[in-house]
Amino acid sequence: VVEPVKVGIAGLGTVGSGTVNVLQRNKQEIASRVGRPIEITHIGARRDNPACNIDGIKVSRDIFAVAEDPDVDILVELIGGTDTARELLLTAIKHGKHIVTANKALIAEHGNEIFTAAHDRGVDVAFEGSVAGGIPILKSLGEGLAANHIQWIAGIINGTGNYILTEMQEHGRDFDEVLKEAQALGYAEADPTFDVEGVDAAHKLTILASIAFGIPLQFSKVYMEGIARLTTEDVKNADSFGYRIKHLGIARDTGEGIELRVHPTLIPKEVLLASVNGVMNAVMIEGDAVGPTLYYGAGAGSDPTASAVVADIIEVGRALTAEHDERVPYLGFHADQMAETPVLDIEDVTTSFYIRMSVQDKAGVLADITRILTEFNISIEAMIQREAEENEPVSIVLMTHKVSERAMNQALAKIAELGTVEKDIMRIRVEQLDA
Amino acid sequence: VVEPVKVGIAGLGTVGSGTVNVLQRNKQEIASRVGRPIEITHIGARRDNPACNIDGIKVSRDIFAVAEDPDVDILVELIGGTDTARELLLTAIKHGKHIVTANKALIAEHGNEIFTAAHDRGVDVAFEGSVAGGIPILKSLGEGLAANHIQWIAGIINGTGNYILTEMQEHGRDFDEVLKEAQALGYAEADPTFDVEGVDAAHKLTILASIAFGIPLQFSKVYMEGIARLTTEDVKNADSFGYRIKHLGIARDTGEGIELRVHPTLIPKEVLLASVNGVMNAVMIEGDAVGPTLYYGAGAGSDPTASAVVADIIEVGRALTAEHDERVPYLGFHADQMAETPVLDIEDVTTSFYIRMSVQDKAGVLADITRILTEFNISIEAMIQREAEENEPVSIVLMTHKVSERAMNQALAKIAELGTVEKDIMRIRVEQLDA
Repeated sequence: VVEPVKVGIAGLGTVGSGTVNVLQRNKQEIASRVGRPIEITHIGARRDNPACNIDGIKVSRDIFAVAEDPDVDILVELIGGTDTARELLLTAIKHGKHIVTANKALIAEHGNEIFTAAHDRGVDVAFEGSVAGGIPILKSLGEGLAANHIQWIAGIINGTGNYILTEMQEHGRDFDEVLKEAQALGYAEADPTFDVEGVDAAHKLTILASIAFGIPLQFSKVYMEGIARLTTEDVKNADSFGYRIKHLGIARDTGEGIELRVHPTLIPKEVLLASVNGVMNAVMIEGDAVGPTLYYGAGAGSDPTASAVVADIIEVGRALTAEHDERVPYLGFHADQMAETPVLDIEDVTTSFYIRMSVQDKAGVLADITRILTEFNISIEAMIQREAEENEPVSIVLMTHKVSERAMNQALAKIAELGTVEKDIMRIRVEQLDA
Repeated sequence: VVEPVKVGIAGLGTVGSGTVNVLQRNKQEIASRVGRPIEITHIGARRDNPACNIDGIKVSRDIFAVAEDPDVDILVELIGGTDTARELLLTAIKHGKHIVTANKALIAEHGNEIFTAAHDRGVDVAFEGSVAGGIPILKSLGEGLAANHIQWIAGIINGTGNYILTEMQEHGRDFDEVLKEAQALGYAEADPTFDVEGVDAAHKLTILASIAFGIPLQFSKVYMEGIARLTTEDVKNADSFGYRIKHLGIARDTGEGIELRVHPTLIPKEVLLASVNGVMNAVMIEGDAVGPTLYYGAGAGSDPTASAVVADIIEVGRALTAEHDERVPYLGFHADQMAETPVLDIEDVTTSFYIRMSVQDKAGVLADITRILTEFNISIEAMIQREAEENEPVSIVLMTHKVSERAMNQALAKIAELGTVEKDIMRIRVEQLDA
């Protein structure tokens, strides 16, 4: 029997319950990635949360009991706030626990102290969930782009603010009206200051800049400006100039020093960041070798943030498990635990199709085609028929609903036999790329 | 004196020379990230390359001399092709070298064999540069999203193909014409089969799918379809339906098995992937916890691919250097090697500005404003003046060229004193987000 990695979780709110759910739901895949199981041995929370099932897990109302529990290897701090969280982490570090946290305020304001304590005690501190939710942005910046001199970072790193600006942009709605709606929908806090005034974004920018430029965490030096003064007129004027307004966190190495600033910003419509809408986050990073890169995803929410928290748990778990030469298995999963899932034949793939065919311009051809499609249960979602010159073939263009490749092959073979359709039928698969 | 990490490089073509350049240019930052210097001790190449300076580095014409050199810790394979490269890697592994490679064909076709040999010998194999150039996509997938059950991946992972499709889309140009131009520009190989028929994308998809789903590398099972049959008519028809045509690599877990397919695909215009144009790459990944995420950047080229190769060298170097609890320093750089770069005051920041002010509708006001702006060397790039109702204030909207925050503050203070301009002047900073 392999000893599991033992995880204690402090805080069972939105992110805490998501973390429990993700660890339970993907238990087996995660174990194959780590090399041994991850087990939640202790939860500290003032109250239970019906959003997750904690049957059989030890629960304390005192979170410090988790930080001191000898049956915990990794303390996962998800209580939020800075004072108690700081004390909790320092206690856990003193007891030799590795730390995973999603607390941006804590890291931005007290990170220097926490890292020093952790270094002295020889434990890890991982905090991917503190910036841009599920997007693995700290790993990308600190490891994936480690070859680069980072020139600048510009990020949409507050989903609430981006939701408000998107609504103002797309529907011409007023700031106050959208903010009230965002509060009703649960996107914005009852006290929206952190989101709307840029404090939340400034916390995240502080962390990004430190990893990018190798400078200490310096939250107090971030210039902050919120979005409350923006009007729909500004949004329209920006559009006239060819721009969108986004609330960005920007860090830039000018050669003289580092700019750290959070403020509404006009950016050209055609840059990818301008198309990042609603509550989604995205961070653009310019490195001297890699050039511009962009990372996009959900910046908040129970499961997305849990994705980052559990990735950190896996990271620490891998370090505790493997020899250093194979901390991360070559292909992510351990070689003796690869799945036997088959690769499907293309005929078993189901998609919608775009079909273009040239047909003779005479009566009944379209009826023949639709009859054959119907025979194979292929339904048409949209059609374009282009006028043709006299005696030239007519182009028929279809979009179908979803159908198996096999059925489409058989239908097109039969259509090709009609004699009224040219053999060279064009087909292109369609993907909606939605969840 | 700290012992450096010793790197041997086999192959000094486009990526090899970029790797030398990046390691030399960012030597100090990289050493602060690794915890000790990285030194190129041996280069194996059939000929020198004027694109990089290798003065003082030992050079062999026989690449196998590098793989056997006791003065090499990490062998970096950048020769391309599969037969010699495979033999080189197996030789280096036998000699206990860690491996870094950007060779997608080699990993996709011989990875299973190479990983087994490396595992048995206890050495690392890193291959971030093999997929999507400088985008840290393998790290994001295998580590950043390790908490997730991956549902699907859809990627623009061949820059040449995307360049051709973008030109067809934006300028209505024919496939053959754009391909010839891409060859002349050096984007496409003289034999464009690998790019245009999808082989290159299939190699990359094989690697992505293996890391996503924990299945062995199975290049032979990828369904491949190229872009050569696409016409501008198809591009226009797709547009009429609300779609763009992209050449995608798609891997999906259906529950029955894994789909692996590379083919032209219609995707809705409004998804972010549809806005990825030219030679740029992007990969979209849907995980059960994180939801949709996207990673964008340069998929090829000397420096961008070197960014990934050097990140892998850093990764291995960190593992060779640090205790496991601090393989990656908490903030990416080692605590005793943080930079003292100052954070700039916002007054020292230089940007363009959007300015909106309400002015009294009378003669001379605009002249007063422009005179003051000129006094502070602030030049106007564009202006909108909206008609106003009678006796209502007029709205003047300006875009300026770049100016320091300090000068803008002084100018706006002086403008506010005119008495003809309302005090509440709106200003929003402008960023072009280009390199």
